[in-house]
Amino acid sequence: MTTNASTADAASNKVTLVDTTLRDGMSSVSHQFTPANVAEIAAGLDRAGVSTIEVAHGIGLGASSLQYGFAAATDPEYVRAAVDAVDNADIAALYVPGIATLNELQSAIDAGITTVRVAVHCTEADCGQQPIEWAKDKGLTVMTFLMMSHKLEAEPLAEQAAKLDSYGSDVVYVVDSAGALVPRQAGERVAALRQAISADIGFHAHNNLGVGIANALTAAENGATYIDGSLRGLGASAGNAQTEVLAAAFERAGWDTGVDLFPLIDTAEHVVAPLMKEPQIVDETALVLGYAGVYSTFFHPTKRAAKKFGVSTREILLELGRRGVIGGQEDMIIDVASELAGRTYETPAIAAV
Amino acid sequence: MTTNASTADAASNKVTLVDTTLRDGMSSVSHQFTPANVAEIAAGLDRAGVSTIEVAHGIGLGASSLQYGFAAATDPEYVRAAVDAVDNADIAALYVPGIATLNELQSAIDAGITTVRVAVHCTEADCGQQPIEWAKDKGLTVMTFLMMSHKLEAEPLAEQAAKLDSYGSDVVYVVDSAGALVPRQAGERVAALRQAISADIGFHAHNNLGVGIANALTAAENGATYIDGSLRGLGASAGNAQTEVLAAAFERAGWDTGVDLFPLIDTAEHVVAPLMKEPQIVDETALVLGYAGVYSTFFHPTKRAAKKFGVSTREILLELGRRGVIGGQEDMIIDVASELAGRTYETPAIAAV
Repeated sequence: MTTNASTADAASNKVTLVDTTLRDGMSSVSHQFTPANVAEIAAGLDRAGVSTIEVAHGIGLGASSLQYGFAAATDPEYVRAAVDAVDNADIAALYVPGIATLNELQSAIDAGITTVRVAVHCTEADCGQQPIEWAKDKGLTVMTFLMMSHKLEAEPLAEQAAKLDSYGSDVVYVVDSAGALVPRQAGERVAALRQAISADIGFHAHNNLGVGIANALTAAENGATYIDGSLRGLGASAGNAQTEVLAAAFERAGWDTGVDLFPLIDTAEHVVAPLMKEPQIVDETALVLGYAGVYSTFFHPTKRAAKKFGVSTREILLELGRRGVIGGQEDMIIDVASELAGRTYETPAIAAV
Repeated sequence: MTTNASTADAASNKVTLVDTTLRDGMSSVSHQFTPANVAEIAAGLDRAGVSTIEVAHGIGLGASSLQYGFAAATDPEYVRAAVDAVDNADIAALYVPGIATLNELQSAIDAGITTVRVAVHCTEADCGQQPIEWAKDKGLTVMTFLMMSHKLEAEPLAEQAAKLDSYGSDVVYVVDSAGALVPRQAGERVAALRQAISADIGFHAHNNLGVGIANALTAAENGATYIDGSLRGLGASAGNAQTEVLAAAFERAGWDTGVDLFPLIDTAEHVVAPLMKEPQIVDETALVLGYAGVYSTFFHPTKRAAKKFGVSTREILLELGRRGVIGGQEDMIIDVASELAGRTYETPAIAAV
């Protein structure tokens, strides 16, 4: 049984909410939050009792670039703004091997982070060893992400988690980067990890199939004790589980999140919402992305490619899903869009012959 | 175990999606869909294979009024527009005793409905007897709603359902009018009904706690075979479970909904979305409404009262929740708002003395 709330792991009835409005949520504002925005949002989260706040570019440290979009400030500037704004919360940064360097992680440490989140594709735990061991040596709390966790069944995912555990991770996350999991599948994966590792387990949801909050609940019922969210659901594609809604739903489901609901709502409604360029909804592109199991950060590039090549986002995403692309293979979006456009243009020419 | 997908009731693996974009969704457009809009949306749902489509004013037959808002057309005009637009779908109308009359139901039958949905407060099943028996006598399919189902625990709710069953209901719905249930609670209620009645069971979600889709999934796992949704999630307050997302999530969870996903998405994206005045999101008012367990249709009147009396929607909703108000007690919104405003104004005067 993967959905039984009375498992030993859930016995304490406590979960810790980690907020990523200022990191994953950066994708929703084209990485344009200012350090002043970061300070105000971080202060609101801290007032509500959120104990870990992730900040910096939406793709993590060192991602501000032509490929991933330039942010409005440097990562150390964002980190410093958050560190100076909070009284209690730990400030965290995301480290994706291949995008960030250890020099950039050192700069984030110098700016004041005390937690790093190391993200690897779910089949590539090995890539986490060097940065995890390096960060543990520096005294950081290390949370690690198994991205695109829908791509592996529960048992092989747990084997990858065991590696991250052995490198010294404090928390190993099941990360549903594509928003492709339904609650039963999220629960199965967390339950398998709970059997396999001694580190704490986290869950990071995307809402493409409309079940982000419920996947988080089911993850907690199966032993996850760290739950990611973002205010107003900000985040790549359909966005994350909405932090203030997580707080209310977990309370109503009998969990103790340790946060105060109303300060969270105040920050979501009066600070974050006015900064949003568009609402975080499940539109066609977001839904098909989750349905096809494509990486959430492909959302905006796919919309742009669809427009440029005159093909539908749906066709591009379904083809990317068939090809099994993963984070880092963003160039495939243009390949697929141009191929689809080529086929479309050829058809009338052939018909004319 | 209420969340075990392998119950006998779920063995067939089939659920029927019922769409209420054109009824509950009317609340999101101030009941201003035109008959032409209704025809286009109903045709899209019909093409996708949706077998029952609910239409007319957002509060049901006969609700077009100063109190509930005037609709852009009469209920029979809406019904006829939908009936003429579909090849296969049954057209349904909502009948709330006390708001609609049997004369109005007869007019809807004359216009072509073949299904009626009779909605009673969850403690008042008795009120359903007369219209259910009348409608069965006319040869209609009768679905019945236990509104505000979060207000009763599973066993007493099942006792009310047994009454609706005995009057001749074809389907008895657990209706989460306030969006106040979390999946475990939705599943427990459906499971209790499944033990108590022989009629089919339905589930109608609102998304205030972000778990509308998941509540529907859990309801199905516990024996519900009719699942309500609306395109783009249109509906009172946070809106309903989003039909096209239901279709995708249920497919990914191993269910057969009998509908085609992409025609649904096309209608949501290209017909419904351009008609929306605002996105269907979980803002402060929607979230607090679900958290406090207040009827979803109180959403807009509460926002208006908050503005008029200069008090927060949060305070009004929390107080309405404390008082346990139900549908039909909309006048309490003004009472509470003015009382709260009075207290606010009194405080400085008292302090001055």
